[in-house]
Amino acid sequence: MNKRKIFNDPVHGFITIPHELVFDVIEHPYFQRLRRIKQLGLSDYVYPGAIHTRFHHALGAFHLMRKAISILKIKGVKITEEEELGAQIAILLHDIGHGPFSHTLEHSLISGVNHEDISKIYMKRLNEYFKGKLTLAIHIFEGTYKKKFLHQLVSSQLDVDRLDYLTRDAFFTGVNEGAISYERLIEMMNVRNDEVVIEQKGIYSIESFIIARRLMYWQVYLHKTVLCVEMMMVKAIERAKYLIRKGELLDASPAFSYFLNNEVRLKDFQKDEKVLHYYSHLDDVDIFSAFKYWRHSSDKVLKMLCDCILDRKLFKIEISNKAFPYTKVRKLNQEAMKKFKMSEEEVSYLVFSDATSNHAYNPNENRINIMKGKNEVVDIAQASDQLNISVLSVPVTKYYVFYPKVLAE
Amino acid sequence: MNKRKIFNDPVHGFITIPHELVFDVIEHPYFQRLRRIKQLGLSDYVYPGAIHTRFHHALGAFHLMRKAISILKIKGVKITEEEELGAQIAILLHDIGHGPFSHTLEHSLISGVNHEDISKIYMKRLNEYFKGKLTLAIHIFEGTYKKKFLHQLVSSQLDVDRLDYLTRDAFFTGVNEGAISYERLIEMMNVRNDEVVIEQKGIYSIESFIIARRLMYWQVYLHKTVLCVEMMMVKAIERAKYLIRKGELLDASPAFSYFLNNEVRLKDFQKDEKVLHYYSHLDDVDIFSAFKYWRHSSDKVLKMLCDCILDRKLFKIEISNKAFPYTKVRKLNQEAMKKFKMSEEEVSYLVFSDATSNHAYNPNENRINIMKGKNEVVDIAQASDQLNISVLSVPVTKYYVFYPKVLAE
Amino acid sequence: MNKRKIFNDPVHGFITIPHELVFDVIEHPYFQRLRRIKQLGLSDYVYPGAIHTRFHHALGAFHLMRKAISILKIKGVKITEEEELGAQIAILLHDIGHGPFSHTLEHSLISGVNHEDISKIYMKRLNEYFKGKLTLAIHIFEGTYKKKFLHQLVSSQLDVDRLDYLTRDAFFTGVNEGAISYERLIEMMNVRNDEVVIEQKGIYSIESFIIARRLMYWQVYLHKTVLCVEMMMVKAIERAKYLIRKGELLDASPAFSYFLNNEVRLKDFQKDEKVLHYYSHLDDVDIFSAFKYWRHSSDKVLKMLCDCILDRKLFKIEISNKAFPYTKVRKLNQEAMKKFKMSEEEVSYLVFSDATSNHAYNPNENRINIMKGKNEVVDIAQASDQLNISVLSVPVTKYYVFYPKVLAE
Amino acid sequence: MNKRKIFNDPVHGFITIPHELVFDVIEHPYFQRLRRIKQLGLSDYVYPGAIHTRFHHALGAFHLMRKAISILKIKGVKITEEEELGAQIAILLHDIGHGPFSHTLEHSLISGVNHEDISKIYMKRLNEYFKGKLTLAIHIFEGTYKKKFLHQLVSSQLDVDRLDYLTRDAFFTGVNEGAISYERLIEMMNVRNDEVVIEQKGIYSIESFIIARRLMYWQVYLHKTVLCVEMMMVKAIERAKYLIRKGELLDASPAFSYFLNNEVRLKDFQKDEKVLHYYSHLDDVDIFSAFKYWRHSSDKVLKMLCDCILDRKLFKIEISNKAFPYTKVRKLNQEAMKKFKMSEEEVSYLVFSDATSNHAYNPNENRINIMKGKNEVVDIAQASDQLNISVLSVPVTKYYVFYPKVLAE
Repeated sequence: MNKRKIFNDPVHGFITIPHELVFDVIEHPYFQRLRRIKQLGLSDYVYPGAIHTRFHHALGAFHLMRKAISILKIKGVKITEEEELGAQIAILLHDIGHGPFSHTLEHSLISGVNHEDISKIYMKRLNEYFKGKLTLAIHIFEGTYKKKFLHQLVSSQLDVDRLDYLTRDAFFTGVNEGAISYERLIEMMNVRNDEVVIEQKGIYSIESFIIARRLMYWQVYLHKTVLCVEMMMVKAIERAKYLIRKGELLDASPAFSYFLNNEVRLKDFQKDEKVLHYYSHLDDVDIFSAFKYWRHSSDKVLKMLCDCILDRKLFKIEISNKAFPYTKVRKLNQEAMKKFKMSEEEVSYLVFSDATSNHAYNPNENRINIMKGKNEVVDIAQASDQLNISVLSVPVTKYYVFYPKVLAE
Repeated sequence: MNKRKIFNDPVHGFITIPHELVFDVIEHPYFQRLRRIKQLGLSDYVYPGAIHTRFHHALGAFHLMRKAISILKIKGVKITEEEELGAQIAILLHDIGHGPFSHTLEHSLISGVNHEDISKIYMKRLNEYFKGKLTLAIHIFEGTYKKKFLHQLVSSQLDVDRLDYLTRDAFFTGVNEGAISYERLIEMMNVRNDEVVIEQKGIYSIESFIIARRLMYWQVYLHKTVLCVEMMMVKAIERAKYLIRKGELLDASPAFSYFLNNEVRLKDFQKDEKVLHYYSHLDDVDIFSAFKYWRHSSDKVLKMLCDCILDRKLFKIEISNKAFPYTKVRKLNQEAMKKFKMSEEEVSYLVFSDATSNHAYNPNENRINIMKGKNEVVDIAQASDQLNISVLSVPVTKYYVFYPKVLAE
Repeated sequence: MNKRKIFNDPVHGFITIPHELVFDVIEHPYFQRLRRIKQLGLSDYVYPGAIHTRFHHALGAFHLMRKAISILKIKGVKITEEEELGAQIAILLHDIGHGPFSHTLEHSLISGVNHEDISKIYMKRLNEYFKGKLTLAIHIFEGTYKKKFLHQLVSSQLDVDRLDYLTRDAFFTGVNEGAISYERLIEMMNVRNDEVVIEQKGIYSIESFIIARRLMYWQVYLHKTVLCVEMMMVKAIERAKYLIRKGELLDASPAFSYFLNNEVRLKDFQKDEKVLHYYSHLDDVDIFSAFKYWRHSSDKVLKMLCDCILDRKLFKIEISNKAFPYTKVRKLNQEAMKKFKMSEEEVSYLVFSDATSNHAYNPNENRINIMKGKNEVVDIAQASDQLNISVLSVPVTKYYVFYPKVLAE
Repeated sequence: MNKRKIFNDPVHGFITIPHELVFDVIEHPYFQRLRRIKQLGLSDYVYPGAIHTRFHHALGAFHLMRKAISILKIKGVKITEEEELGAQIAILLHDIGHGPFSHTLEHSLISGVNHEDISKIYMKRLNEYFKGKLTLAIHIFEGTYKKKFLHQLVSSQLDVDRLDYLTRDAFFTGVNEGAISYERLIEMMNVRNDEVVIEQKGIYSIESFIIARRLMYWQVYLHKTVLCVEMMMVKAIERAKYLIRKGELLDASPAFSYFLNNEVRLKDFQKDEKVLHYYSHLDDVDIFSAFKYWRHSSDKVLKMLCDCILDRKLFKIEISNKAFPYTKVRKLNQEAMKKFKMSEEEVSYLVFSDATSNHAYNPNENRINIMKGKNEVVDIAQASDQLNISVLSVPVTKYYVFYPKVLAE
């Protein structure tokens, strides 16, 4: 590389790009698209600073991967230059399959396809473009490379992805309690039996990390107002799809139109080049610009949803630890039908209930391992002397019902 | 207000909304539109974190106004509750007239109208909506209120607008040297002869503020890569307007189409309701979504500009302290005509030169006054014992020429 | 006050002193003494930045008291100006009774007297000096004032003392995971039934606060190396007292000599003016300067301890979840006797074992109350939906044995 | 090294010690002494957080040296492992010769010897102890090593010493405007013609650095209250020396007594082992503990100075841009003689005038060089397009007079 490329990051300081291939991947339009996809979807409706992008997160996670590998190498873990580059590219591309508004639309835009699957498709396409130089990165990403610990750095309960996004999301939302000590956690990393482990004295940092993550879930990611606007967006798109199926013409960008008009599945991505082509042109801009057209729609439901989203006239949300009785939702439906002079079918887009659940620590996933002494390794849920992490392993579920504020009056 | 409203701000911590009217202004769709206008236009092409919005800046400046007024009152400056509310609303709305991409398109979208003029129009419209409750705020904003110092807090060389934007822009870009001590500057504020002054011991903080601002100009606001992509955006819109005038049909949102098709002037805003209506639907989304349509345009010039912007294939920029000779630009034009098989008229959108200039301290504007002893007031340019601020008063001009990178090879 | 007094605080920004009486209390030599008493005793042996003083902490806690009272008043809690001033002075003076090295020497310098008792004596003495103006502050501090919640702000499981010291200690040690969101916790404070409560939505912040505090305990306050050097200091002073009782002359400042030569009890403070006089001249300087004399002592034990403390040649520490068997300590004693050619009595100062325990949340103390709905109040241990805070209520005990490193070889 | 040693630094995060020799130097009592010498002497009398130590600064500067060398190596500058280690040790030890209260007592404790000279003596002594392993470090420190740029990293107008102390002092005082972007400055470093240069685009960062340094000088290092208490300390020691010469006995630690009783010169350090021995036992504790004895002295002058320092009853300071007339000082002297019933000789310790001056940029020292294009190098004073750095090269002098506050009434 004839020039040392540096990105300014308010979170980590300078992010240096040490290798020409990494730089070329960043420059590719597939990766540049991530500049137009916000990391936290609609969370800025509650936390106005939370408008950071997938692009920035991918760079941050890449930066932490470099740090982690450097620490592990100092501790004597064998990692070749090729593996290092592979792990860097794997983390850089781990989210490249994200569509507009990230998780919000993950299942309503394209059903049954998650972003990891699409990331893999992108990686393969890029690997062709870069003439096979991404093969090792793909193996690490998919977990098929012999050194499993490299995959764990990319994806596990304590991967550099989480270390970056928790830090970054806490930073941009301004939720200080969500701040974790990623620097200390990385300092405490080691490898035993081909698994990433944390040294014994890092145990309090892990506890702190798990609690911070739990806090970020309930305070940010699953914040009831965020859930509400996300559901409103999902309903608007469902309504649009319904209208289109009924034969109405709705303005939307070519890329968005494609996905509104076609039920796309994972295998379509694989067999039809144009699916990925359209997907690569799709980002947050397409969704919001469609809403700006649709607020002038003659369909009252679609118009109401788009107006409310754009002008931030959010619905009312009720929350509970148990499911709302069917009667409650039915009553709201009937009020809505009366109030808005709409059919039952129409109000089903305006009154809706949902549930969300979350583990602070998921014992069924890849565990967080603590190194005791030289070679013994135990799960954090066993290692903590006091904080009952097994308690945190029980998923917590919360139930919601959403409806236009006017019904609450 | 039955609820204490708080915004999380990674820059200032919690921002409290103390008054129902302020809250209602924030909730108005006119103000919510600012959520979709980035503070720094296209600076995120260089500083990926710089995606904070006008909405957030307006809240931040509002917060600093509250602090400044509170300090002044403790120091014995008389400010009534009505004046306090007026100043708060004036600063909240100071940027409401900004269009998409803020300064970038200020003169290409609507010629001869600056955002302050449009802000005033908005304020008047909102004043009708809020039944005259914004009258005092408007007087303060326009500088027609008897206590001039309140206007200076809103708009002068050391207003809370600058204190917030320098702090915020330094924060989100990650350019630490741009950080100013807004807290100290506010602590040092006072009023003498109806003018905002800074107490003597704040003199080094002012120097530091002026230098930080200068640094932010050259390192961020007028960063050559930022200028380049801004110019590319301006040229794309000029090209689109040209094609439309020639009769071509170009997809764009209704609001954007209106301004592409009509030469709007200030008086049009005043006499025709629908001008403000369309303007109120216009934000960053409209521009980027149009570019996403236009990259499929049959016009090679428009297509090239849109592709290059969206995929961040930026043009080459050369910079100089004196104007580039006409021959240089002509030579580039000719190369472009040959390379791209285009007419002279077409390449004029692809090869262009420009100049930009900036004062670190503008002695012709409202001055920064330092309080010496009890009552003497002097201009900072005289008060500094060493730093020759008068030198900083000379505008610096830099000249640029931009052209597609392929011409440089 | 003819001048607005401000302190710069890297933790909270500017700390403003709003009242002349507060300023005069700060200026008093009793309070200025706190400039020479470090907040964290010997923790800088592990965290070199942790050299902040009791003086600075007292100012910080005072600042948070002002914020808390301001929030409570906005929420409609009745607090008069006198009560406000009283609470401010109570928190300012809450630690004034601390002696050198804070908790480390609390029980070895003066047995059976804790710093709160001495704080009360100081407050009474200052109240005479300030002609009764501190009476209300004393009532709040002692918990005898009718509004109990004011006492809780000064002293409870979620008082402004803890909010400041956790924040400050995390800041100066650089242990980021210990950072709490004091701003949010204060925002969530309210009063119900004359008790400080936290609003429902602050529950995750409380959990985060409890976990952060637990982490600070094990990672900083009870860090094994910190405990070790603290124990070495205690042993050095015990040895010095022993030698003095045996008739040896040891150099020390007059104030320190007084406490080395006399067994002082709480009632001595009350009946003999000179006890408080000497105490008021005692600070960290006296202890370290004595060690610098004593490293030249002819007593080998005292010399070894002082040399090792001053040159940071720390002892070896072993740690366990259960008590070390008597045989282990005896064996170390015998090795030490042989190695250093010392008597059993002498080595008892060089080989010693100890235990320390800590609650993350103490259910027997003043509880942390959560407000559910308008008026219901529940203990945090019941309110948390998942984090089993009752588990955190079980005290954790750790056992240590310390001895000169040479014995480990 | 069998263990990876890490220091926590609130300023730079983790500081890793990469080499056993570096660790052993840190562990040596000569270096540990720096834990008891504050970086900013008595500045905590104004900025209570400013109690950080020379120990911490030395570690911080060492950390930045590692970063600088790593960047330079990436840019192709040849630096061997031995040179790297040498530069690291040179910076680690650059301030080891500092005595108590750093600059304050530099010329009153030992006349005509500055701390660099003593640092060199220490380095030589340590080199003997470490069997010649410090030879290269000493050559770099003294500027006699062939690669001059290594010396410039240790000592020049833009060395890592300044980068650390400005950052650290701004951090601990809480003076945010003093913050510099050390990370960016290091990123912009390069070497041309064996000199450290800054790349062209770092020019605004340099300007910002020079202005920040100027601000720190007037706002912190030469703050009038800081100067005042420093002068009071100097006068107290001069008085003590005077009394000792007259035959009085004054309590002080053995080390301090040695320097109070003997006029020590540089050559005494070289020829008499015990001079360095005593010096190595001397730190801030000795001075303050002596003042605590001396406040009970029968000499009224010494007693007054010590009382005023310990209880922070500071003298009155007047400040001016020109020297105070002799008559002013004489009048104050006479008032003092009358008020305190003292002789002219006695009041000369209580009423005194002084002057201090400072360059923001010293053109006579090692210049700050800017790299233009590939190989051209120019001085920053020429390179800046607007900020007239030559103006900043003129030294600014300020004059002071100090006297007991009671004389002002």
